[in-house]
Amino acid sequence: MHSNQIHLASRPTGWPRPENFRAVRAELPALEEDQVRVRNEYVSVDPYMRGRMSDAPSYIPPFALDAPMTGSAVGRVVESRAEALPTGTLVTHQQGWRDVAQGPTSEFRAVDDAVSPSAYLGILGLTGMTAYAGLTRVGKLQPGETVFVSGAAGAVGSAVGQMARLLGARTVIGSAGGPEKAAMLTERYGFDVALDYKAAPIAEQLPDGIDVYFDNVGGDHLEAAIGAMNRFGRLVECGMISQYNLETPQPGPRNMTEIIKKSLRIEGFTLGDHLDVAPEFLSTVVPWLREGKLVYEETVVEGLDNAVEGFLSMMRGGNKGKMVVRV
Amino acid sequence: MHSNQIHLASRPTGWPRPENFRAVRAELPALEEDQVRVRNEYVSVDPYMRGRMSDAPSYIPPFALDAPMTGSAVGRVVESRAEALPTGTLVTHQQGWRDVAQGPTSEFRAVDDAVSPSAYLGILGLTGMTAYAGLTRVGKLQPGETVFVSGAAGAVGSAVGQMARLLGARTVIGSAGGPEKAAMLTERYGFDVALDYKAAPIAEQLPDGIDVYFDNVGGDHLEAAIGAMNRFGRLVECGMISQYNLETPQPGPRNMTEIIKKSLRIEGFTLGDHLDVAPEFLSTVVPWLREGKLVYEETVVEGLDNAVEGFLSMMRGGNKGKMVVRV
Repeated sequence: MHSNQIHLASRPTGWPRPENFRAVRAELPALEEDQVRVRNEYVSVDPYMRGRMSDAPSYIPPFALDAPMTGSAVGRVVESRAEALPTGTLVTHQQGWRDVAQGPTSEFRAVDDAVSPSAYLGILGLTGMTAYAGLTRVGKLQPGETVFVSGAAGAVGSAVGQMARLLGARTVIGSAGGPEKAAMLTERYGFDVALDYKAAPIAEQLPDGIDVYFDNVGGDHLEAAIGAMNRFGRLVECGMISQYNLETPQPGPRNMTEIIKKSLRIEGFTLGDHLDVAPEFLSTVVPWLREGKLVYEETVVEGLDNAVEGFLSMMRGGNKGKMVVRV
Repeated sequence: MHSNQIHLASRPTGWPRPENFRAVRAELPALEEDQVRVRNEYVSVDPYMRGRMSDAPSYIPPFALDAPMTGSAVGRVVESRAEALPTGTLVTHQQGWRDVAQGPTSEFRAVDDAVSPSAYLGILGLTGMTAYAGLTRVGKLQPGETVFVSGAAGAVGSAVGQMARLLGARTVIGSAGGPEKAAMLTERYGFDVALDYKAAPIAEQLPDGIDVYFDNVGGDHLEAAIGAMNRFGRLVECGMISQYNLETPQPGPRNMTEIIKKSLRIEGFTLGDHLDVAPEFLSTVVPWLREGKLVYEETVVEGLDNAVEGFLSMMRGGNKGKMVVRV
């Protein structure tokens, strides 16, 4: 039995390139007691992976070189030496970019087979939980407030907009690049206002009166948001995708004094520090999903061999919603 | 009975001038039930008063024209129709630049007579309360943590450093401009580390490992602090004096992505939103002061007639520590 895997071959500077990765065919040992073997159905490609490709000091450890790219994946048990996870069980795990994963049962979690398996990589996985935890734990969203989210056509952003509404926000504003993505915000995800940041500088378009800004973008968006926040506004720093591939850091917002004038709070967060939200998250969001109150987009890349290409395309904005790779 | 008062006669443009103010002798009505009459001992002159002399939109309302300059004052009850505040009680109030104040007991707060009355305008007034609320309410300082404060030789900064230590900080680092001020930090105020930001860029001097940064300066100091913060660090935005007189806003920190990487919280605050901390503040800090654990600097101006001159001198930096007017 073999496992086809994508390894990180070298650390990229600036934009990652195909030669930073390597396809490897690894032989798998026989299963030990309490182990399972899983054939992946989908593996996840996520923006945070860019950070882990570098070895700059960070609180998320970098990916190891010459080892598989780890990350969320969902698959089905094809061989089992564990009673709890019989053959055929749908499971999620973190072994990432490979077609076959195996290991002790502690590394695999059985999940409900009634929804599409790829949902566990998105709206019911890290993506949806990031949106939920950011809005509730960090943004402390209150009913009746106005929410602005950047990168709103993305997987996290579109979940943020919809969950904000379902959590009681009065007005939900989103930004995205280009007229097509902007149209999706209002037509598909129910945003009240969609801003196309490619049409004009975001600061010229963003109305005043924001209570919670969910930042996926940083840069000009962050500066515009600081300027448009209400007093006591909360800025939830989830991502700054505009900054990640710059070789020279861009200067920060020119209006930092507004933080004092308006008693703003800017707070960075990592889902890993809020994993205890999972039960509340699932009990809140699964019903929304069942009742059709929550829609999500998926861009499916076919074939593990195209994982790198998919990742790069996503980093350049070539995805609609959550990108997954069908193995 | 009369009250000698200083009124705002007209709104200054640029530097205030003596003719923007007017000395007025007002007749006082007889006391009503539950009212007291207070002879002021000290009144406060503060930088924020300049802002209130203008009527530009702000979250602090402007001073009224042809009405007394309001502000912090401390005095003694000389006539009372209220059991709770008998004659002789030392009280603080906000009726400002006048020799005699009177009104309902709700406008006066009885204070401990065992410390110098002028302390209630500084280390026991807005100055000290700003330091205390910033450290505890916003910075959520925990025993054993490391604190960095900029503008550390100033009235607020020197209080922050000392209070941080008394609240259990393990290491207290301060920055100030020039070797004399820096020496004061360690020799007079008990800081562990004093950094002279005029000697070398602050980012080159500041050690890593900060848990709470109390910012009075902004600009380069803020960028250096973001870089040196520990994970889950709190940046308390009290002032950004480096930015206030710039004609063109300076770009913000180049390391904003650290906010996410280290789950930092940057939070602006205004003491007006934390006035409910007063009882806790006084019950904590008055004992420190009585036990000689807190030192502070004061510049005393003699006579209410010199309040305007004192205010102008302070605005030009002619004070050391808190400036008060002895009535």
